[in-house]
This record gives sequence, structure tokens and C-alpha cells, in this order.
Amino acid sequence: MGKLSKVIILRWGHRLHRDARLTTHVALAARALGASGFILSDVEDENIRKTIEKVAKNWGDGFLFEMGTSWRKIVKEWRTKNGIVVHLTAYGENIQTSDVLQQIKDAGKDVLVLVGSKKVPGEFFLSDFSDFNVAIGNQPHSECASLAVFLDRLFEGEELQKTFLDAKVRILPQRRGKKVVRNL
Amino acid sequence: MGKLSKVIILRWGHRLHRDARLTTHVALAARALGASGFILSDVEDENIRKTIEKVAKNWGDGFLFEMGTSWRKIVKEWRTKNGIVVHLTAYGENIQTSDVLQQIKDAGKDVLVLVGSKKVPGEFFLSDFSDFNVAIGNQPHSECASLAVFLDRLFEGEELQKTFLDAKVRILPQRRGKKVVRNL
Repeated sequence: MGKLSKVIILRWGHRLHRDARLTTHVALAARALGASGFILSDVEDENIRKTIEKVAKNWGDGFLFEMGTSWRKIVKEWRTKNGIVVHLTAYGENIQTSDVLQQIKDAGKDVLVLVGSKKVPGEFFLSDFSDFNVAIGNQPHSECASLAVFLDRLFEGEELQKTFLDAKVRILPQRRGKKVVRNL
Repeated sequence: MGKLSKVIILRWGHRLHRDARLTTHVALAARALGASGFILSDVEDENIRKTIEKVAKNWGDGFLFEMGTSWRKIVKEWRTKNGIVVHLTAYGENIQTSDVLQQIKDAGKDVLVLVGSKKVPGEFFLSDFSDFNVAIGNQPHSECASLAVFLDRLFEGEELQKTFLDAKVRILPQRRGKKVVRNL
């Protein structure tokens, strides 16, 4: 993964209320695991925005959050700017048994990761919209879990030692108990 | 990771309705990412059980599901049988910057993974209950994402090529589109 490549997550199909907590988990996992930003496509949800902004305010900023733009528009613009699009799906190429991750790394480009909720539009699988269809195993499970493994492998673990700008709170890792530093 | 070691997930603090979807995601991620089973501690939730059983019936079995037993009892019995207990928490030792994962692998024992929902009891951090407190990065994010990265690293990716017993449906990984095989 080139040091300059950025990774943005596009969450498609968010349903107000029903998906509130899962979408929040996906967004926070994206932030914690090295993505540069998160786009909630097609809908607006002020509660999600508030939650992400609150975490960024306390735990450190530098994470883009956007919402409301149609997924087609985002994907088209991304590709116009020479970025690649990775669709995470249980039907795609297995990240463990294929060379798909190596191909993504070799491309050396910015990556937009499409993460669906329920059944996604068939267009997600087409070359007009996605460059790669990647499966974190070919079993049904969780977009949040899939995204986490994808980012961890893409960044080769380095994302977990990332520091965040302007953090008010920071955890000091411990064998036992909890220790935090606050910069007030 | 020794071939004979088994990993069971204990989900603590599940709240009916509110946590239904997240707990389901955690359980399905556990199954897809190589765990041998999932225990919903302290409460019973028939909807979760039905969902997991339905997935196992269609996509392949061999995954333990239990619910209702108190977490203290499960942990005590696990340790009596010489298993180790890993508590996933943002406050723990960073899996990337410490040798905690190597220590867990070196132990060569069965692993019970404690996964909380909201704030967990302080006892989770004590040596009476946990052997290791492990952080998938020290930022707040998602227990589902944390569990996924932990299992992927523990099993070194091999879990993603696992086959499941008696599967009625199986995905054939594809670059484009969806392909499934059904054994009716």
C-alpha cells in the first residue's frame, strides 16, 4: 500500500433507525482501522454525523465524513480522478485464496470501498462501477467484520499504531485496567 | 495457533432488541472467521438463536451456539479446563505494537474471547477472569470489527478457506456477479 494512497468507505443502503448502530460501527471501524473518511451515500442521518463528529472531537480528527450524495455520482467522480473501487461482497474473490489484494496494492491508487447493508444493486458487481469484488471469506457474515479485515490486511497492520490529530483523550495500552491521558 | 486449539466467543451485555443486529453480526463473524462457537451469556434471545441456526442449516454446521449461562460460570469452567481467556478491549495491549498475540499463540490452549457491548464489568480486566486484555488499536470502534481482526490474526488467515459441514449452499468466488452451488 503506497504511503500516499487514501482509502474512503462508501456505506450504501443505510436505513434510518434500523441501521443506526451498525452504520456507526462501520464508520468508527473505518476511522480506527486507517481509512481517511466515510461517506453515507444517498441518505442523510444527523445522528450518525453527530456520533462520528463527537468521537473525532474527543479522540482526534482528520477523518472525513460526508452524507447524502448518490452512490453513482460518488463512484463516477472517484474513477474520473483515477481512483479504484473495491466492492466488499461474500460473492467476490476470496481475499485469502486469490491474489486480489495484491492486485489492489499493486495498483497503488486511492481506494473507494463499497460496503452494502442488505442486498446491493446488481450494478455494484459490474465493471462500470467496481474494479474488484472482494470476499472476506465466502460465508455470510458482517460488513463491519469484512471491512475490518480488509483494512487490516490492506494496511498490513500499520493502521493500528496511527496517531490522531488534536486528540483530547488517548488510551495508554495496559495489561490490566484502564489508563487514559486527557489534554484539556 | 495449534491445529487443535478451539476458540469460543462469549458475548456479554446483550440487550434484547437494541443489540439484536449487532450481536447477530458478531455471531456470524465468529462463525465465518474460524471460531468454533458462540455463547450469549446471561440472557436468552430466541431470535438470535433462530438466525444462527438458520445460517448453519443453509451454509454448513459445526458451530456451537449456547445462551443464558452466567458469564462468571462460563469463565470459571473454561479456566478449570485449562483454557485461556482473552478480553477484547480498547484499553488493552495493542495487538500491533505488543507481543500479546504471540503470547496467546505460544500458550497453545483453547481460547475464550470475551466481547462486551457497552461498558463491561471491571472484573473483566482482573487476572481472576482474563488472561489477556487485547486492543485492536486503542481507538473506540466496534466489537464486531475487533473480533474480526483478532480472529484473522490468530488463525493467520487460514480461517477464510475453511469449509463447513453439510452445507446446502456454497458460494463459488467470482470476479463479477454471483454464483452459488446448492445441494438439495
